[in-house]
Amino acid sequence: MQNIVVIGGVAAGLKAAAKARRCDPAAHITVIEKGDLISYGACGMPYYIAGDVEDIEDLMKTPVGILRSPGYFKNVKDIVVRPQTLATAIDRQSKTVTIKNLASGTEEQLIYDKLVIATGASAIKPPLPGVDLANIYQLWHPADAKAIRQGLEEKRFKNAVIIGAGLVGMEMAEALSNWSIPITIVEMKDQVFPAFLDAEIAGIVSKYVQDKGLTLLTAEKVVRFTGGNAVEAVETDKHTLPADLVILAMGARPNVELAKAAGLLLGSTGAIAVDEELRTSDPAIYAGGDCVENTNLLSGRKVFAPMGSTANKHGRIIGENLCGGHAKFKGILSTVVVKIHNLNVGKTGLTEQEAKQLGYEYITAMVAGHDKPHYMPGAKPITVKLIADAATGKVLGLQAVGEGEVAKRVDVAATVLTFGGTINDLFDIDLSYAPPYNSPIDNIAVAANAVMNKLAGKLKGISSLEAKEKMTSAQTVFLDVRTPDECRQIRLADCKNIQYIPLGQLRSRLDELNKSDEIVAFCKISLRGYEAEGILESAGFDNVKVMEGGIVSWPFACEKN
Amino acid sequence: MQNIVVIGGVAAGLKAAAKARRCDPAAHITVIEKGDLISYGACGMPYYIAGDVEDIEDLMKTPVGILRSPGYFKNVKDIVVRPQTLATAIDRQSKTVTIKNLASGTEEQLIYDKLVIATGASAIKPPLPGVDLANIYQLWHPADAKAIRQGLEEKRFKNAVIIGAGLVGMEMAEALSNWSIPITIVEMKDQVFPAFLDAEIAGIVSKYVQDKGLTLLTAEKVVRFTGGNAVEAVETDKHTLPADLVILAMGARPNVELAKAAGLLLGSTGAIAVDEELRTSDPAIYAGGDCVENTNLLSGRKVFAPMGSTANKHGRIIGENLCGGHAKFKGILSTVVVKIHNLNVGKTGLTEQEAKQLGYEYITAMVAGHDKPHYMPGAKPITVKLIADAATGKVLGLQAVGEGEVAKRVDVAATVLTFGGTINDLFDIDLSYAPPYNSPIDNIAVAANAVMNKLAGKLKGISSLEAKEKMTSAQTVFLDVRTPDECRQIRLADCKNIQYIPLGQLRSRLDELNKSDEIVAFCKISLRGYEAEGILESAGFDNVKVMEGGIVSWPFACEKN
Repeated sequence: MQNIVVIGGVAAGLKAAAKARRCDPAAHITVIEKGDLISYGACGMPYYIAGDVEDIEDLMKTPVGILRSPGYFKNVKDIVVRPQTLATAIDRQSKTVTIKNLASGTEEQLIYDKLVIATGASAIKPPLPGVDLANIYQLWHPADAKAIRQGLEEKRFKNAVIIGAGLVGMEMAEALSNWSIPITIVEMKDQVFPAFLDAEIAGIVSKYVQDKGLTLLTAEKVVRFTGGNAVEAVETDKHTLPADLVILAMGARPNVELAKAAGLLLGSTGAIAVDEELRTSDPAIYAGGDCVENTNLLSGRKVFAPMGSTANKHGRIIGENLCGGHAKFKGILSTVVVKIHNLNVGKTGLTEQEAKQLGYEYITAMVAGHDKPHYMPGAKPITVKLIADAATGKVLGLQAVGEGEVAKRVDVAATVLTFGGTINDLFDIDLSYAPPYNSPIDNIAVAANAVMNKLAGKLKGISSLEAKEKMTSAQTVFLDVRTPDECRQIRLADCKNIQYIPLGQLRSRLDELNKSDEIVAFCKISLRGYEAEGILESAGFDNVKVMEGGIVSWPFACEKN
Repeated sequence: MQNIVVIGGVAAGLKAAAKARRCDPAAHITVIEKGDLISYGACGMPYYIAGDVEDIEDLMKTPVGILRSPGYFKNVKDIVVRPQTLATAIDRQSKTVTIKNLASGTEEQLIYDKLVIATGASAIKPPLPGVDLANIYQLWHPADAKAIRQGLEEKRFKNAVIIGAGLVGMEMAEALSNWSIPITIVEMKDQVFPAFLDAEIAGIVSKYVQDKGLTLLTAEKVVRFTGGNAVEAVETDKHTLPADLVILAMGARPNVELAKAAGLLLGSTGAIAVDEELRTSDPAIYAGGDCVENTNLLSGRKVFAPMGSTANKHGRIIGENLCGGHAKFKGILSTVVVKIHNLNVGKTGLTEQEAKQLGYEYITAMVAGHDKPHYMPGAKPITVKLIADAATGKVLGLQAVGEGEVAKRVDVAATVLTFGGTINDLFDIDLSYAPPYNSPIDNIAVAANAVMNKLAGKLKGISSLEAKEKMTSAQTVFLDVRTPDECRQIRLADCKNIQYIPLGQLRSRLDELNKSDEIVAFCKISLRGYEAEGILESAGFDNVKVMEGGIVSWPFACEKN
């Protein structure tokens, strides 16, 4: 009968314990958790703060409302869970873990045959003046979430400032905006989601959240927090922002102190190094969840990318391997999806920036379109950016954003990436089709198509960022081929040379354009822009480009009527 | 300069023409269409009838409201489209097509270098007495849709009968139920969606639509239609059903008369045979869309599976190949998705029945669960059935049904099938995760997990159909491990031996069960049923099974309070 000790009782740890129990009914399994809560849905906290989830306890219950308590784990899974218990040291020689009961202060030692480290990660707390003032939160524990929600319900917060425009920061922006208080997001980098979106996609998100009334300050650095007992202002290198609620969302770092002190190998990312079977440098010790590093399947590089879905996969694999299995975890694609108001944002694989850094010869295409046939009620636009290897056509990554359905497209792309598929494969897939769900040619197939057309030299696309740079050039004419009605409603702002010729009239009005000019054609989504390119090229214009994504994906200012 | 003639101006034909124009700016391209409308979204007709789409013309417009008329195709794409023109004969020797203007009756001949046949399919009209009575429709042309919608708006229809419970029939049931008239569906086979759902999944759909008030008559054959000028009743081999609106939805057959008369090869399915480049037996003639047969990628067999998404892919490939390209269409997975009220139903790859017929040694698992974390507002259950090769673990097919999100799971599975992936691959995929979209372990990963557990002998599952058969056995005890509250709300009906022991009490109440009995454990979704199996087996019970899918997926009667 083997002794299994698991350090950490949230996601990976408890999953490993449960799976081990299934594989080895006789094992003695103990889970140590330093907090007072176990097995909670930490990812659900923003939705509790938003008010979408009524009770914080819902995050700790099974779907039928049973609290995942130590008693539940004992009764159902015969697993001993010890909350409020800290593992203070691992002695690998004697195979013992020293634990400390945080309530009573008593220490004892647990003997293990196999040990699992699932100590998770912690939110980064910047060493800035005033960072310990009251009402500065990190949203890392349900207690934080409860305090924030209570303050919102009691209308104690008048000005919220969120530091960091990554996943947690933007989810919190969404959550807080339910409470009708002014929200400012301060981001050090020059865009939102700097870790996983290219600039032109991030620009769409920025424009959207600003339209919804959020203040977004990018390329701006927090210097200090001021106030008496509680925070009153956030000082950046550019502004002083009144703030009585501050959320620190500056990322996370793995909790590796225990592993490090025990002499286990850490990886280049600073997280615990594990092999494909999630074994540490000590074969009796496994590690999983937010405290380990993962392999990015595309780059082959080690990454620190804490994610609840990965932690659960780790748990299952560790559970099997604790019982003699040899299950393998191959790696991740750094897939993410996030909802901000009604905007869906997702990404899988490499961004263009990453592809460039890794030295790929790549090609990209960005397409916009409805997520289902335009005639269906509820059809909404999405913009998809696809990145592929120019030589082989292998898909490298996909980003998608819009009020339409995004997650499905991201997941299909993630699946293609898993198998090393090409843009041709992506186009070929027999995806489900019916008008309530999508168009006969799905948005991602359209994106694959656009990449193929660019590779074949038929589509000469430029990004919205490149187009923006050309706006001030005297040699570049922007050609808007939308209908007069559409042009009346919304137009590109700040454009030096722009001509409006509806697509249907283009063949008969070619003399209004000059063959020596560079022409940038576009429309609402730039499908007509692409038609215009074809018409112009067959008429002998040889410097025509299409602004990819059209007005729908334009991240800069527009004039509206 | 080559002459391209395309016969058929709806999906594949116009797509081929447009793509050819892009690849060959100089070609002379003519599209012949026998109807008066071109390029309409035929798949949208049920939603027009339902009233979701206001105007039938919306189905013929571009997303910005421009009618896809012959003038539009001429102006934008330099393609000549001739509506109301029938192709009556192909002379392959002289490479001419004889066409007839249906308005004027005049005939002429078109010379082609390359010909495309995209003649589509026609709804099957059974040779039954009375089938030509007024108000019996086939929903194959917008004119039918207009007539039905008008009758509904004028409240002329009091009783609708739909013949056929396939895709069109069930979409029409959904559409008509918006108009609050009694609807009866008559299906010859013994289940809904006989072409693509296994019985236990079809049973979930049947139960759902009957709960919504539709009358479903399966294993029942229409014998005749009666009435004066208009239909008044549908007579089946079992009933006489009053009917003043009848929809014939008995499937389709390919329009191959023209191809056959020209001596082109037809395939075993009766549709036009084409190679991977979509060339017919005459190298100057391509064919695509609903009139050709496709290869099922899993079985390797030829199938007739008309689908708008496939037709559009065909069009693109033909367009390239018309201009010297060698693009290939590899085949289909017979993926489908359909919405009925709020129920989403989808399938990709092989059903269990098909896997059996093809001689696979297969394994299946059916799992139920919320489509996102249960604490999120709007979380809804879905049931997923996964079919895999027992020897290799290769995924063979997936079916999914529920009010929760289904299409995404079907599309991920379709992608896995495209690459010949295994259940391990399916589990591994780094799918996007955030609480508004899914749980950390997505439903399809849970299904993959269940198959792995069954293969490893850890989960002994039986289907709801097998369980139903055991209900009358004296040697079988059904063990419901839900909470007393849940059991009060809903219970399996007609179960001879049933015991109620909540999971948390099971370890301490083992003496209430008999080791010589066969025990079928279950709960709401049978996750606790699986836990119960583990507890019982570790206590020495060796004949325990789990009823897969639980109460949520139970297609038979329940008692409710």
